[in-house]
Amino acid sequence: MQIQLAIDRLSIQEGIAIAEKAREHADWIEVGTSLIKEYGMESVRRFKEAFPEKVILADMKTMDNAIYEMDICFQAGADAATVMGAAPFATVEQCMAAADKAGKKLIIDLLGTDEEEKKKLYTLKNAILCFHISKDQQEHGKPEQLVIHKPAGLQQKTAAAGGISMETLDEIAAYSPDILIIGSAITKAEDPEQAAAAFAEKIKQKERM
Amino acid sequence: MQIQLAIDRLSIQEGIAIAEKAREHADWIEVGTSLIKEYGMESVRRFKEAFPEKVILADMKTMDNAIYEMDICFQAGADAATVMGAAPFATVEQCMAAADKAGKKLIIDLLGTDEEEKKKLYTLKNAILCFHISKDQQEHGKPEQLVIHKPAGLQQKTAAAGGISMETLDEIAAYSPDILIIGSAITKAEDPEQAAAAFAEKIKQKERM
Repeated sequence: MQIQLAIDRLSIQEGIAIAEKAREHADWIEVGTSLIKEYGMESVRRFKEAFPEKVILADMKTMDNAIYEMDICFQAGADAATVMGAAPFATVEQCMAAADKAGKKLIIDLLGTDEEEKKKLYTLKNAILCFHISKDQQEHGKPEQLVIHKPAGLQQKTAAAGGISMETLDEIAAYSPDILIIGSAITKAEDPEQAAAAFAEKIKQKERM
Repeated sequence: MQIQLAIDRLSIQEGIAIAEKAREHADWIEVGTSLIKEYGMESVRRFKEAFPEKVILADMKTMDNAIYEMDICFQAGADAATVMGAAPFATVEQCMAAADKAGKKLIIDLLGTDEEEKKKLYTLKNAILCFHISKDQQEHGKPEQLVIHKPAGLQQKTAAAGGISMETLDEIAAYSPDILIIGSAITKAEDPEQAAAAFAEKIKQKERM
């Protein structure tokens, strides 16, 4: 399991400063949608400059205009991008093709998708599937539990996102996602470095078991 | 019927220059998602500065983080914003509340929503409902026709978007949407001013009939 540190609701400078502290323990660094919409592709460029050795994920949450959106974030230095599974399938397919062509990774965010949509999405073999409880569902909606319902035999890598904390890590790690997306449990911790180290240590322990 | 001029896949400067040409004929100016993701809220600020008398719509396409996303675009000068109807309902509700509180307008983009989702969305009385065929559906998907299936008795205002041209205007105008969202048929026209004037004239004729 790899750690993806999600940076959201911060300025570029604050976000980079916090990611610096967690640098040793994060494999992926996510430039969150809030940074992208607030600062544009400058946010992606600055993070790639600051963390050239990391996988930089642009959380584009693309719903349309697939090729254009993939192109601008890959050109800005993103190594991976997200598309919404709830988008028309033509959009997801185009994002997949753009990522394949550029040698980049594509994460399909399954937020708001039904079983019929998921079935189609599961045909995209190079995609990473992200099981996701959104911020608004956590903060304002009916509490839902983050679960990974991956049909048996599916080969795609998986990611999990949505309020993952030291308290809920056991539950979600039981599904063995390839990528654990962790945001505020690190970025809002009193000591982000220690928080990231604690996650990394606990994951290592689990993998030894 | 009002005209919303959608500015996409252009630099801020190019977009403002084209919108200047269509100024007289557009009631709303949409800062497209591509500008927002490329340049951030600077795009919204610059358009509001350039067109203080227009309704500036930030095409945020919010999928999560509702309050934060509404706040940043309203603070940047947007008079209206979009949320995806395919987002969890908690997100749409929070966007509606944020828009109401700020005295701004909310457009719910119905792209990718099914009938069950639409039913819930129809309960948000202050929202404007946008019937939408996406760019990728137009360019890469199965050709679909833009139709407005608004149940009888529904009070919300409606908008229509998706490849509207002088050729397809008759078809879509038959549904009498309150807002016609027109992008490349004006922005990519050889003479954007003349193109915008032609749309405005044809709409006036229809309304006289």
